[in-house]
This record gives sequence, C-alpha cells and structure tokens, in this order.
Amino acid sequence: MSDKKPKKPQKLRARLPRGLEDRGPAAIAATRRMVEKIRAVYERYGFEPVETPAFEYTDALGKFLPDQDRPNEGVFSFQDDDEQWISLRYDLTAPLARYVAENFQNLALPYRSYRAGYVYRNEKPGPGRFRQFMQFDADTVGSASPAADAEMCMMAADTMEALGIPASQFVVKVNNRKLLDGILDSIGLGGADHAARKLTILRAMDKFDKFGVEGVRLLLGQGRKDESGDFTKGAGLSERDIETVISVFGVGAVLTDCATTDEKQARPRDVLTFSSSDGEKWHRKVTFNSVFETLKFVREKLGDSAKVFDDGISELRQISELLSASGYGDGRVRIDPSVVRGLEYYTGPVFEVELLLETKDEKGRPVRFGSVGGGGRYDGLVSRFRGEPVPATGFSIGVSRLQAALTMLDKLDTKPQPGPVVVTVFGGDIASYQKMVADLRNAGIRAELYLGNPKHSLGQQMRYADKRNSPCAIIQGTDEKANGKVLIKDLIAGAGLTSIEDRAEYLKKQAEAQIEAGESDLVTEVRKLLARHDVRWD
Amino acid sequence: MSDKKPKKPQKLRARLPRGLEDRGPAAIAATRRMVEKIRAVYERYGFEPVETPAFEYTDALGKFLPDQDRPNEGVFSFQDDDEQWISLRYDLTAPLARYVAENFQNLALPYRSYRAGYVYRNEKPGPGRFRQFMQFDADTVGSASPAADAEMCMMAADTMEALGIPASQFVVKVNNRKLLDGILDSIGLGGADHAARKLTILRAMDKFDKFGVEGVRLLLGQGRKDESGDFTKGAGLSERDIETVISVFGVGAVLTDCATTDEKQARPRDVLTFSSSDGEKWHRKVTFNSVFETLKFVREKLGDSAKVFDDGISELRQISELLSASGYGDGRVRIDPSVVRGLEYYTGPVFEVELLLETKDEKGRPVRFGSVGGGGRYDGLVSRFRGEPVPATGFSIGVSRLQAALTMLDKLDTKPQPGPVVVTVFGGDIASYQKMVADLRNAGIRAELYLGNPKHSLGQQMRYADKRNSPCAIIQGTDEKANGKVLIKDLIAGAGLTSIEDRAEYLKKQAEAQIEAGESDLVTEVRKLLARHDVRWD
Repeated sequence: MSDKKPKKPQKLRARLPRGLEDRGPAAIAATRRMVEKIRAVYERYGFEPVETPAFEYTDALGKFLPDQDRPNEGVFSFQDDDEQWISLRYDLTAPLARYVAENFQNLALPYRSYRAGYVYRNEKPGPGRFRQFMQFDADTVGSASPAADAEMCMMAADTMEALGIPASQFVVKVNNRKLLDGILDSIGLGGADHAARKLTILRAMDKFDKFGVEGVRLLLGQGRKDESGDFTKGAGLSERDIETVISVFGVGAVLTDCATTDEKQARPRDVLTFSSSDGEKWHRKVTFNSVFETLKFVREKLGDSAKVFDDGISELRQISELLSASGYGDGRVRIDPSVVRGLEYYTGPVFEVELLLETKDEKGRPVRFGSVGGGGRYDGLVSRFRGEPVPATGFSIGVSRLQAALTMLDKLDTKPQPGPVVVTVFGGDIASYQKMVADLRNAGIRAELYLGNPKHSLGQQMRYADKRNSPCAIIQGTDEKANGKVLIKDLIAGAGLTSIEDRAEYLKKQAEAQIEAGESDLVTEVRKLLARHDVRWD
Repeated sequence: MSDKKPKKPQKLRARLPRGLEDRGPAAIAATRRMVEKIRAVYERYGFEPVETPAFEYTDALGKFLPDQDRPNEGVFSFQDDDEQWISLRYDLTAPLARYVAENFQNLALPYRSYRAGYVYRNEKPGPGRFRQFMQFDADTVGSASPAADAEMCMMAADTMEALGIPASQFVVKVNNRKLLDGILDSIGLGGADHAARKLTILRAMDKFDKFGVEGVRLLLGQGRKDESGDFTKGAGLSERDIETVISVFGVGAVLTDCATTDEKQARPRDVLTFSSSDGEKWHRKVTFNSVFETLKFVREKLGDSAKVFDDGISELRQISELLSASGYGDGRVRIDPSVVRGLEYYTGPVFEVELLLETKDEKGRPVRFGSVGGGGRYDGLVSRFRGEPVPATGFSIGVSRLQAALTMLDKLDTKPQPGPVVVTVFGGDIASYQKMVADLRNAGIRAELYLGNPKHSLGQQMRYADKRNSPCAIIQGTDEKANGKVLIKDLIAGAGLTSIEDRAEYLKKQAEAQIEAGESDLVTEVRKLLARHDVRWD
C-alpha cells in the first residue's frame, strides 16, 4: 500500500495463497473416475461410507500441545467465539476416531467405514506438495485381529489394480511398529518417557528414501546439515545404537533399492543385502518368507528386553499367511522392515503403497513417485476418548498424489470432453435462437446460446465454438429464417479440411461439413451428426 | 480443566464443534445422487467444471473491512505465516471471480463453468443452520445479456424437476436489484455514498418472509424489537419513504402470500393484492405479464430520478420473453419484485428457487422450506480485480438445504443398502475363512470376514450380520469343514420367519433359509441367493 496516495483506488490482485491449486475439467473428471473406482473396491470389502466435517476441536485432532498458547504448526487453526481452538483436519483418521468415540454405542462393531475428502496441512508448500489435497480412507475400528490389517493390504492392492496400475508397477509394503519398539527397548529407549526422542528416531528412519542410509545415520546421531546449510538436530544415539537401528531397517531398505537396478528388476523381491550390527554383510537370494528368517537373526542380537519385537514378527507372520491364503502372496504385498510412516499414532502393522513406475524430471533425471498411500494400526486414537482399549486399523489412498503421478506418467485419460452445440445469434431477436437451444437441451443434447456480445461477427462466434471444442454450430441468417431453415456446421469434419490437399475433394468435403435442414428437423439432424462422429458426453 | 488435580489424566471428550454434522450412508448416498442429477443438467446447459480450493486470501473474498484489525464476522479466518489473512470460502461465487480474473486471458469468453463444494459460515448455528454446507453453482462470466440470466432461471427449473420435484411444487422467482436502486434514487439514497444505509434497507427487505410487512416497516424506520427484547436498529427512513419502498415490494410479497391460502392455491399467480403509496388498494386478477403493468404503475409515481428502474423493468421484460419463447412461461418461473437476496454483490437480476411444499414441525405447525437456491447478476465482482467491466451472472443450489427439505418431506430414498455377506469364523485358523471372503470379493460380491473377537459365539456373529443388514452369512464348523461343505444362512428369508404362525410352514421355511453347499460352490450358491432376493448394491 502506498502511503502517499491513500485515496487512489487500488486494483485488487487475483491470486491464490501458496500451496493451493485450481482444478480444471480434465483433472476434475479424472478425480471423479478415480474416486468411483476406489469406492467400488472399498464397498466390495464391506466398508460403508461416513463423512465428518472439515474441522474439529483442535484437541480432538490430537495435535494440541498444552504448553503453547496456539496450536502447533502443521494445522490451520482459529479460535471459535467461545475461545475454543478449532483446526482444519490434517487427515481423515483423527476425525474418524472422534466420530467413533462419540457414536460408540450405536455402531455395529467392528465398525467398517470409508470416506473421501480434502485434508489441509499448514506446511511449507513445494513442487507437488500442496496444502489442500484429497485422501480416500477405509478403517476398521474394534478389531485387534491381524486379519483386519491383512485385509487393508489386500484392499490396497485391489485398489491399485482397479485404478489400472498392473501388479508389476506397484508394491504394498508392510512393516510393524513393534519391531522399532523392540529395538528401542533393547537400547533403553522404551516406554512413554522417551516419546519425544522416539518420534525423532521415527522421523529419521522415515527419511531413508530421501537422504539414504548415511543421511539417516546422521539424523540418528548428532544431526544433519543439508545443501543450504540448514542443520537438523539428530536423536543423539551412540554409534553402536545407530548401527543396531540402521542394520535392522537395512533389510527392507536394500530390498527397496533392488527394484531400481536392472539385474534385480527381474525378481526384485528375491535379493537381499543385509548389513548386521557387527559389520557382517549378507547378500543372498531370499523368498517372501526369508524376511522372517532375517528378522529372527536380528531378534537374537537384541536380547531379552525386546519381547515386543517378537509380537511384531508374530503379527507380520499372521498377516503374511492370510495374504498367501487369499492369493496375495505373489509379490504385490511384501513385508518390508524399512517402512516407517511419518505419523506418530501408529502402534502396530503399518502399510505403504509405492508406485514402482519412474519418470524423468525436467532435467532428465529419473523420478520415483514413492508412496501414494498407506496406513496402519492405531490402537490408541479412539481410546483417548473412551478410556478403554479400542483397537483400530486403517488405510488411506493419497488421491491427489496418485493422480499427479498418473498424470505425469500419462496414464490418465485427459482428453477434453466434446463441448456443447453452440447456437449462434444474428440480429436483435434472440428469443427464436434461445428456443432452438431449449429444444436441443430438452432432447438431452448439450447446447448453449452464444452469450457474448450479440453484435459479434459470425467469425468471432465460430472461434468461440472452436475454443469450446463444440461438435457443431447452428446458424440462422436472414435468408434461412425467411425459408424456415437452419445451417448446421460440422466442426469436427470441418477441422479435418485443412489436411486435404486436393481442391475438388476439399470443396466436396467442405460442402458436406455444412448441412441445411428445416427448422423442425434441427434436433434430428444434430443427433445424426453426433452419432456420425460418435460424440458422447461423459 | 480442574486447577486442583492437574496431573490426573483427563479423558478427552469426543464432540463436534457447534453447527457441524457427521453424515451417514443414507445422507451420503442421497447427496451423491443429487449432485449427479444437478451435474447432468448443468452440463446439458454447456457449463464445464472448475474447482477452487476451500480457502482464499480474505481480501479476494471481498469481506475484508480495512478499518478492523481482524476480518469481520461471518467467515472463518486465520493468518498465514507471511501475516496475510486467509478465509474459508463462504460461497462459491467470490472464489470463482478470483479464478476468472487470474486466468482471464486463457478462458473462452463468455466463460461458463460449474462447481459443487462445501462452504463455511462463521455464524450462530441454529436448527437446520449449519456452519458447513454444500452448494452447487453455475456461472456465466463475460456476458451482459439478459439471455444469460434467463438461462439461469430455466436451468434452475430443470434442475428442480431433475431432482424429482414437480413443477407445481416449486417456483423460480425473478426480480431485479435495479428496481430497488430506482426506488432508492427516487428517495435520494442513490449512489455509492449511501452504500451502508442501502445495505440496511436491502437486509430489511430480505426479512419479509420472516417478519412480515410490519416487521419490514419497522426495520426500514426506527428499528425492531424481537420477542427476546433484542433491538435491531432500523434504516431510519421517513414514513413516506417507507411507504414507497414497501408498496412496490408489496407486489411480489402478496403474490408469495397467495400460495398459502386455499382459494388462491388453484392459480397462485393470478391474484394480486397491491397497496400503493397513496393508500389505494388493489385486488385483481393478473396474468404473468400483469406484473409489468403493475410495475409501470409504480414507476409513474417515482419521478424522473429513477431511470434505473426502467432498465430493471426492461431487463425483466427481456428475461420474461425469453422464458416464454423457450416454454418456461407456464408459471415455473415468475417475476416477483419481493425477491431481494441477502448478498450485497448483486447488481441486476436476482433469482430465488422456492419449494412450495409444506411440512409440519414437531408442534404440528406448518413449515415452509422457502429458498433452496438462488443467484443473480454480479457485474462488480470480477471487475474488482480487472479494473474493467466484466459482467457475470450465476445460480446456486443449496444442496444441503434442499436435501434437508427433501428428507423431511420423505422425498429421498433413504432405505439402507444391503450389507456385505459376512463369513463367520470358528476356531483359530482363519486363513481358510479369509480365502472364502477373497473368493466372494473376486466375484464382485460385497463380503467380509467377521473381524470381532474370534472367540465370539456364532450368535454374536449372527447379530453383527443382522446389524449390518447382510443378505446372508457363511458358516463352516468342524463337521462342515471335514466334509468340505459350507452353510449359507439366508438372512432375508430368515427375517421373514417371525411372521409365520403355522409350525410346519415355519420349519419348512427355516430349513429353506439354510443352504448347505460344497466349498467350491460357495460363490455360485451365494449368487443364486442374491438373485433370488434381488439384492443389488448401488
């Protein structure tokens, strides 16, 4: 604002806040198709819809830190007129936990539900990182059974295939937070007293894809300085403890890496390099079940304090068996101890769906899309409200993220829909043109009157019809009107004219691209034209 | 929070903030069906989808009052980390204006678009008044033609009929803000200097439905005290000016009233009582066009300063002619000078869709639903950004409000969907049961494994299946397993058993309600059962 000329009216600048996007017809249609396909799978699995609003009391979302006078970063928050803090949901899981707790007595348990919706993150936006994006979740609340977790993995795989992604191009990776808990127990960091440090370790582990094993090592130790010089404080583990943590998660980490090299791409799940805490190196063929042999080997090194590690293995084994029994033991789902998930609330099995497809960025470097969905068991979320154990597990597709990936890979149908039939106007009396439009619409044909300046030339009106991708335009000048006729200009045939080199052929086709019809035959003739070009609106 | 025992862990209370609601399967399915029907109509009219995010810079929404250090009430707002104010959208029109201004050069003009989405109002919630609700809008930007406005009215009517509301049960009312402008000019309140007072008058006029003509009279004068004793300051008009304003708007106001009395219900649009400013009373038969005769009569009393009133009449007349030419002159749409609309940004024609259906409240009093949609011309909204005139008009269906009305009127299909086939579990080995579920799902049958405690009795598991509205349950005990058999319990036939009084008949039907099949025939037999009961999932 200029202080000097405060009275000069200032033109408002039209701009979106950072990290948000507008969406056009192709993106909207693609989302609708994706959502319908996901919905069909979730419903086949017996989940029923439930929807919660976009905001919740901040404490119900579980992000409120009482030692701050404002809810912490990461969420968008405001104070209601009764002084209570309200936040926009940052995921669909926390609001579901609130819903289930509030309606607990009226729900058939286990309660199986799904929902799609936008979530909001008050984070620094970046390329492909938005502050509003869509998720599509399914959750089973009230079941402690690993079968509930196994089902989430099967559903994740079915969903990806329903979206047109073949089995070879995605993988559902499964881990168990209890493995990490066991390791932390073994290095003396178990229990609630170490919650903050545990979260730092968890987030360090989650950075494997981004920073590699050396980056994670630094984040587990003193800290890591990035290219810009920014320093992230580490978890402060000793060298020995870092090795314990790193080595175990190396099992899966290397498995992930395998998928990127040619030699191993043939059977990406059959090669395992494993570096144990005493420096021993493994590199051998493994089968699906060999992950368990390896985990057993790790377990032996952890000592007696890591019993929860055994529970983790046992649950993973049950999940693995259920998957195999149901025909999912073919590599679409695999046990991968490198999966961590960034959210704090997981307590058992965690899942992550990864696209194995690659593309190139603008500099020609390969880009992996990585995670497009995930989830896990969160036995504590509903309990917070109920004061009794309420086990729960869930799975979430990142609709926006997956759509962005599929768009970059050119896997989505983004060709524009045919536009409406445009009735052009000539002269002052538009009522008769409006009637033609109404007749077409009443016959189920997408149609509109040219609503720009009625003094615009026919050429200007035809340019508009072209821009709208119209299949045809209707013209009625003074002569046609006097004779009760209309001209139907075939814009699809017309568009093909420019490629015709023979003059006679051109004139013939040009004549064919313009049909004269009686006023009362308008609908019939337009219908014929649409059928001729197989024009269908979605 | 108790100050005395700060360390006692407090159980979090699960509750929604006021004015928000969770939505279950029936409501969600109804919304989906409504949205699809509305979308089909809007697309037939040649509108294409565009979506903007849930929040915008507050100044772009046009609600920011610079003399306050916080954006004013009515919207939910928060400050971004760069100190700029951001608000949740309170409608879909203001964000569209921002979108069009930002992308002006790339759009085919006139730009015709539609969008559905939630909007947010930071208002006192009340019965049926929510702080999050859904709207479905269509807008034409870049056309000054009354044909664009007329089209909105036709589309409103077509939309209502597409939603199953017959022509006799709704009306699209059309007015023009220029009539009000003309009147204000004539009483010396024209121009931008009187903007605040004009808004007060506008809002007073908009209260006709709520407070009647006497209430509006008070709000136009010194003010009005409600039952609770709260006083609303009035616009401070003189007695004479109040009469001028009231009398004109009486034209439509009385028309609206007509629809509520038996005598007039037969042809609600053909009776007009009109009280002019000199106390003269009219009560006569009028046709659709007689509204114009009446307006002409009013116009003569206003004097030369009210030229804009003439423009208003002329536009209404053009709209009326276009409607008639296209077959909408049958009473579905009518000119009604009592329509005001609460939003400040309208500049010309305004529309309102009203349900004529009545229901009774819990005390048996008749309830009119009133407006379920509306819109109008807002030539100033895009111009704010562009610094050049950009005419625009739009229409919005209040999806949530209309759905609430149709639900109360029992006009929506809210019968629950059939639930999934439930495979019950017996004993520890659930992998074989999980496989049955997978087989059913792979055959496209909605199915699930019982995921409650596997030690639950068969009775408990069957109660769950009943609660889920399952068509059948699958049972395999030790004996069946040994023989490679499964039992299929027909829960639909079973539910009918209680009404059978004859014992033999009961036993016969009971036996029929339980089918034994070979394991490999499971899918085939379940399919037969579903076909027998015509079970279909939506």
